[in-house]
Amino acid sequence: MQSSTPKPITTLDELANRFGGQVVGDGATPLTGINTLEKAGLGEISFLSNSKYKKFLATTNASALIVGMSDKEATSLPRIVTPNPYLYFAHVTAFFHPAEIPKPGIHPSAVVEPGATVAASASVGPFAYIAEGAVIGERCIIGSHVSVGSRVIVADEVLLYPRVVIYADCEIGNRVILHAGVVIGADGFGLAQDQGRWVKIPQVGRVVIGDDVEIGANTTVDRGALDDTVIEEGVKLDNQIQVGHNVRIGAHTAIAGCVGIAGSAVIGSRCTIGGSAGILGHLEICDNAHVSAFTLITKSIKKPGQYTSQLPVMTHEEWLKSASQLRHLDKLAEKIRSLQQQLHDIRLLSKP
Amino acid sequence: MQSSTPKPITTLDELANRFGGQVVGDGATPLTGINTLEKAGLGEISFLSNSKYKKFLATTNASALIVGMSDKEATSLPRIVTPNPYLYFAHVTAFFHPAEIPKPGIHPSAVVEPGATVAASASVGPFAYIAEGAVIGERCIIGSHVSVGSRVIVADEVLLYPRVVIYADCEIGNRVILHAGVVIGADGFGLAQDQGRWVKIPQVGRVVIGDDVEIGANTTVDRGALDDTVIEEGVKLDNQIQVGHNVRIGAHTAIAGCVGIAGSAVIGSRCTIGGSAGILGHLEICDNAHVSAFTLITKSIKKPGQYTSQLPVMTHEEWLKSASQLRHLDKLAEKIRSLQQQLHDIRLLSKP
Amino acid sequence: MQSSTPKPITTLDELANRFGGQVVGDGATPLTGINTLEKAGLGEISFLSNSKYKKFLATTNASALIVGMSDKEATSLPRIVTPNPYLYFAHVTAFFHPAEIPKPGIHPSAVVEPGATVAASASVGPFAYIAEGAVIGERCIIGSHVSVGSRVIVADEVLLYPRVVIYADCEIGNRVILHAGVVIGADGFGLAQDQGRWVKIPQVGRVVIGDDVEIGANTTVDRGALDDTVIEEGVKLDNQIQVGHNVRIGAHTAIAGCVGIAGSAVIGSRCTIGGSAGILGHLEICDNAHVSAFTLITKSIKKPGQYTSQLPVMTHEEWLKSASQLRHLDKLAEKIRSLQQQLHDIRLLSKP
Repeated sequence: MQSSTPKPITTLDELANRFGGQVVGDGATPLTGINTLEKAGLGEISFLSNSKYKKFLATTNASALIVGMSDKEATSLPRIVTPNPYLYFAHVTAFFHPAEIPKPGIHPSAVVEPGATVAASASVGPFAYIAEGAVIGERCIIGSHVSVGSRVIVADEVLLYPRVVIYADCEIGNRVILHAGVVIGADGFGLAQDQGRWVKIPQVGRVVIGDDVEIGANTTVDRGALDDTVIEEGVKLDNQIQVGHNVRIGAHTAIAGCVGIAGSAVIGSRCTIGGSAGILGHLEICDNAHVSAFTLITKSIKKPGQYTSQLPVMTHEEWLKSASQLRHLDKLAEKIRSLQQQLHDIRLLSKP
Repeated sequence: MQSSTPKPITTLDELANRFGGQVVGDGATPLTGINTLEKAGLGEISFLSNSKYKKFLATTNASALIVGMSDKEATSLPRIVTPNPYLYFAHVTAFFHPAEIPKPGIHPSAVVEPGATVAASASVGPFAYIAEGAVIGERCIIGSHVSVGSRVIVADEVLLYPRVVIYADCEIGNRVILHAGVVIGADGFGLAQDQGRWVKIPQVGRVVIGDDVEIGANTTVDRGALDDTVIEEGVKLDNQIQVGHNVRIGAHTAIAGCVGIAGSAVIGSRCTIGGSAGILGHLEICDNAHVSAFTLITKSIKKPGQYTSQLPVMTHEEWLKSASQLRHLDKLAEKIRSLQQQLHDIRLLSKP
Repeated sequence: MQSSTPKPITTLDELANRFGGQVVGDGATPLTGINTLEKAGLGEISFLSNSKYKKFLATTNASALIVGMSDKEATSLPRIVTPNPYLYFAHVTAFFHPAEIPKPGIHPSAVVEPGATVAASASVGPFAYIAEGAVIGERCIIGSHVSVGSRVIVADEVLLYPRVVIYADCEIGNRVILHAGVVIGADGFGLAQDQGRWVKIPQVGRVVIGDDVEIGANTTVDRGALDDTVIEEGVKLDNQIQVGHNVRIGAHTAIAGCVGIAGSAVIGSRCTIGGSAGILGHLEICDNAHVSAFTLITKSIKKPGQYTSQLPVMTHEEWLKSASQLRHLDKLAEKIRSLQQQLHDIRLLSKP
């Protein structure tokens, strides 16, 4: 959430005392905030972590910088040199923008059913609904219009943004953040065929979400059919992702927006999956695999590394020409085989 | 919804009496629940319908099994043999996990406008809003934070999970299930150009949803421009799907997550569409067509069968090599034509 | 929103007086509504703008038509001839279906925090929540279950459908329409690596939305990391779109459903982007670029025009043959190079 308190004043030295790194230049430089290289003004610190933005070093109006080891001499501004300037930027941004913490207590418009338990240190927003048997842990922040189903367990320091829905019986770990519109525990897509009609398979598993998971706006995680859907600790999911029933996502894996993961897929730890990628069901992806954006995984991945299936973009005119070949690649290959055979025959003929 | 009642006790014979199938082994085996082959324990029945899981037959701790005809002798456990073990699994799961039915009545926090009609046998959850002229049928369950627009007709035994929104004038059939976050009847994407600015075309059609349709979390179905958008009976839509205005989806078609269907597409009956597929607008797909995951349909499909346009996944290194050729397939084809011509010339020359 | 008032009666001449165009035939033809060529009946006007539907001209029961210049003589019905029949259709539809305007005022169930400002001419629906410091402008319509965060500024004549969430500090321009389930200002996907764990980068920028923007159901627009995410005036976004942090979308650009736009992408003005397309982050797309459906943009586009990367759809059998070649395009190319070399050698040998 956003800060509305006045910005604290600090200095480069004080930041380095707090977060480490080597100060080069005037450590007493006063600082009131953090901003991008392009937008920073007097009193603001900025950072360089993506070399695409190095061109702005010469013209930035920032009063100080956070830079990596290799950029130590790339500026004459007062600076903090650190092995991981992007991480340092995260810490300094959090320092200048402390989260707004609502006061504990239950808004008078909220409905907490008898038999639900809400910690006294938690806050529950307007029009939130906590069903019977649900447990809300210490220092949780439950936003407006949130719906927490029966017997759901929400651990400590969880942040549910407005309009999150958690279906019955699911479990949410400590320090989890769920953004607006997230749906946890809706029924998986389980259907049996009966003479041309679909028969629904009751989805009686749960969703279990580990500690320190963050899930982006309007992402959906379906409950398991019999067994649970599991999101392990430290997983980060972006917006608009669909996680099917009985999927397991390993610890510290990060998945970008609009990805679809079909039922019973098992994804390893410390993987990254690019935007709009797809993962078919009933397969396994090993730890430390990296899937490019727009890539469909159709079979298990057993070796760490990066995997890709993107069709390169072209002007539409170029594409029309290539596309006509794409439809007939097998015929192209056949022509090549025929040419090889003909050449072979000619060589035989022309031998003395 | 999930069960919290104690599990009923049954036997293999009683299940067969209820749902059919042939009992092999001890029909008196007592049963308290159903679980996966891996997780089942004493007193639990399990099932085998996907041959990928056959390897677990040897080690399962289940007390009984549901198997297909061809697996009749694949286990020595007490078992029910049936032509469709997946369908049988659906029935047995429903038996062990009967749905939780909330008590009829309107939660005191809900708002039902004058002129709206709610059947006495229906239940309306906290913070639900039923607008003027809307009709809620017998035994419907309306979850928390649901918004039912003016003049919407909701037939009997409909289940609306928390936070469903139905815009004005739409119609929902009997036994329809809409999961959390579903939006029915938002405006279609209708825009006319006027000298570089977009002018909105009012969307004055409706959405009409047939009996026994189920729609997954956060899926959206737009209202028609003039005419209606129609989802026929028995259609099953997974999560995060977008259905454009004036689309018609035929009876008993099933569509997996993250699919996008553009305006005025007409999809036949008993089709299946894989995850993240796309259907362009103003085209027709015949009955019994099957679209693979990640496939874009750009023109009408007139013959039943399966259709695919997936780029195979590769390691990123392999992909880099193939991708450079993909950009220039027309040049590859040109080289082959040139080789064919040259060979032809050589053959002419070498003729005696 | 939908009309329930009785339909006004007009004539072809009166429509032409109001909206321009040339009347051909009986200008006194009475008109009570507008409908499609297939569905129109006595008293209804219809329109022809997509030549796919020209076949219905012969059989339509419409009493009058709207047609383009080139179709002036394609019908003998009374008609209005106009350079842009689709735009004309938009105007006439709005004429026959004036929007329902709710009465100004705050529903008794809504919560407006002290320090929030709601114009007297605005209406605020049931269970809406307006946080402290938020401003709601003149004639706004705030639907049920909407959550407007702290210090959000909503300009005049804005229409927020049920269940829109706007996070703190964002700005919404005049006449903006946000459909149900839209989330504006959730945190961008900003993560730094710290020894195998992800550290959240606080997202402290805003979302700023210009005048006359419309955003479809369940679309999400993330707030900026430091700087703002900006949607310029007249932009139209369809449903289920994900807009990453610090994206800028230029004026009058239209984007179809299910598109994903990664962080810091800059999209020009008057672009169109087809359904389920993807735009990678930290790149620029110039004005007047057109991206086809299902196309991934991986690098900046510097020239106006259309860009495509669709794999053509095939029957599954055809695809299996082509796919096996797709995996080995570099080997196909290698074979061609070898053939070229061999032919070259033969020609050298065969030279006299």
